Amino acid sequence: MSLLVVGSIAIDSIHTPTEVRENIIGGSATHFSYAASFFSGVRMVGVVGEDWQAEHTQLFSERGIDTTGIEVEKGGKTFRWTGKYHDNMNDRDTLEVHLNVLENFSPTLAEDATRCPFVFLANGSPTTQLKVLNQMTGPRLVVADTMDLWIEIERDELMTLLNRIDGLVLNDSEAKLLTQEENLVKAGQKVLEMGPKFVVLKKGEHGAMFFSKSETYVMPAFPTPHVVDPTGAGDSFAGGMMGYLAEKNDFDPKTLKEAMAYGTVVASLIVEDFSMDRLKGASRDEIDGRFAQYRQMLTF
Amino acid sequence: MSLLVVGSIAIDSIHTPTEVRENIIGGSATHFSYAASFFSGVRMVGVVGEDWQAEHTQLFSERGIDTTGIEVEKGGKTFRWTGKYHDNMNDRDTLEVHLNVLENFSPTLAEDATRCPFVFLANGSPTTQLKVLNQMTGPRLVVADTMDLWIEIERDELMTLLNRIDGLVLNDSEAKLLTQEENLVKAGQKVLEMGPKFVVLKKGEHGAMFFSKSETYVMPAFPTPHVVDPTGAGDSFAGGMMGYLAEKNDFDPKTLKEAMAYGTVVASLIVEDFSMDRLKGASRDEIDGRFAQYRQMLTF
Repeated sequence: MSLLVVGSIAIDSIHTPTEVRENIIGGSATHFSYAASFFSGVRMVGVVGEDWQAEHTQLFSERGIDTTGIEVEKGGKTFRWTGKYHDNMNDRDTLEVHLNVLENFSPTLAEDATRCPFVFLANGSPTTQLKVLNQMTGPRLVVADTMDLWIEIERDELMTLLNRIDGLVLNDSEAKLLTQEENLVKAGQKVLEMGPKFVVLKKGEHGAMFFSKSETYVMPAFPTPHVVDPTGAGDSFAGGMMGYLAEKNDFDPKTLKEAMAYGTVVASLIVEDFSMDRLKGASRDEIDGRFAQYRQMLTF
Repeated sequence: MSLLVVGSIAIDSIHTPTEVRENIIGGSATHFSYAASFFSGVRMVGVVGEDWQAEHTQLFSERGIDTTGIEVEKGGKTFRWTGKYHDNMNDRDTLEVHLNVLENFSPTLAEDATRCPFVFLANGSPTTQLKVLNQMTGPRLVVADTMDLWIEIERDELMTLLNRIDGLVLNDSEAKLLTQEENLVKAGQKVLEMGPKFVVLKKGEHGAMFFSKSETYVMPAFPTPHVVDPTGAGDSFAGGMMGYLAEKNDFDPKTLKEAMAYGTVVASLIVEDFSMDRLKGASRDEIDGRFAQYRQMLTF
């Protein structure tokens, strides 16, 4: 198992303009793991409550994901999120959020897990992300995600984290908030100056931008007419990207760019159904097929 | 002169978050012509008032653009637009608009002009666009632009136009308005069903999408950190695209895709300064250089 992810495991209720789905699997570690499992062995670390069903865990173990790091808190309830998407399917409102067992989540890694060479610190407080990082033994590549809340209330800890990771993944509004810069190219470059070796700036339906000292580029989202539920697109993007890097056991610029493209392709699949449902029916062959189509689209 | 453009010629006043520029050259035919002139001979047709200065026309004739189709209306005033950009430099408010001589603009083409093989009907009422089209003698490729106003008040005429042109260029919000479809891939496909052989859906800072019966693809905007004034980006995009098609004297799928990329590159230059100022200092070599860089960005 070469890829470790630590993050949230959730039970979501999703309202789209045409449909409501209640109590479906959500969370960052979940979407990430499922997406990454098409490329690499994955260890998933997170916490759930007693309301978490064994068949939920089975969904991941059936994909070969190591779920021994899912901690079940006795008497606790799983993190729950209810969200409602606007007509444009890009903007959303949080209707309800119950942190539950996530509130005091302080992961202690199993010894095997501390030796994973590829690490993804999914969205969580920088304090928790640093605690995880401190348990690792010489990881080769550490990438983290963050969000507006931590930029606002744990900025110092986030700055410490940025100096200890290789890559940061964040979305456009978060990059603007972090840098006070409206131009996304400038924002990405400013985040880069804060410490990480590369920055991936996600733009939702418009794709993602990549920044390193030597490169700046944009990858558009793969155009799909079937957007059913965008939840987890960003985490699936990161899962596809990190999974590919772990598979190749490399992260030179060429491999990173291919990884960005795989992340884009996996994200375009996940939005075509609720929760992990679209990926459940997918194969590596299908992903590779869409990857080839995507490459063709961008060739002129 | 193989490329004809009929559209607005304006005097703009532009407010950006950091600067105000008054009485600078704006308009659709202007931006289009200037951009296209790097690729092909261009005939520009439009109307101005007596306040239009000879040196304004000279700016275009110096680039080899045929300006004999610029009609000066006696006692009239040139179309004027004042706009203010938001901090994101993508959204804007119209502060003032005076149609002036544009209000009764009904272009009569010179005989030479009617034989141009490549035609761009820049944003204008579909009635006027149809009048121009009716004067043409067997054009090879006709592409039109439109806007929300015409979708709302001249929908029938627009539908007639869509069945007589080869390509339509419009922006994302206009495509949504025209099709009542929020998903841009679906919206683009629906516009295609309305008649044109291809549709270019512009997404501002996020690039453009292309739709034909056999192809759907997205091209991201070329990432520039120096966004000074986005006015005219869409018309310059169309100018670069049509100029390249006219230069190649072709519009097969491969040439169209290269043309989309050239449009993207020219649009990324125009936004780096006010009015036509950035392109004034540019050369075809510089455009080709950025084109090569853009292609490299999208290669993995």
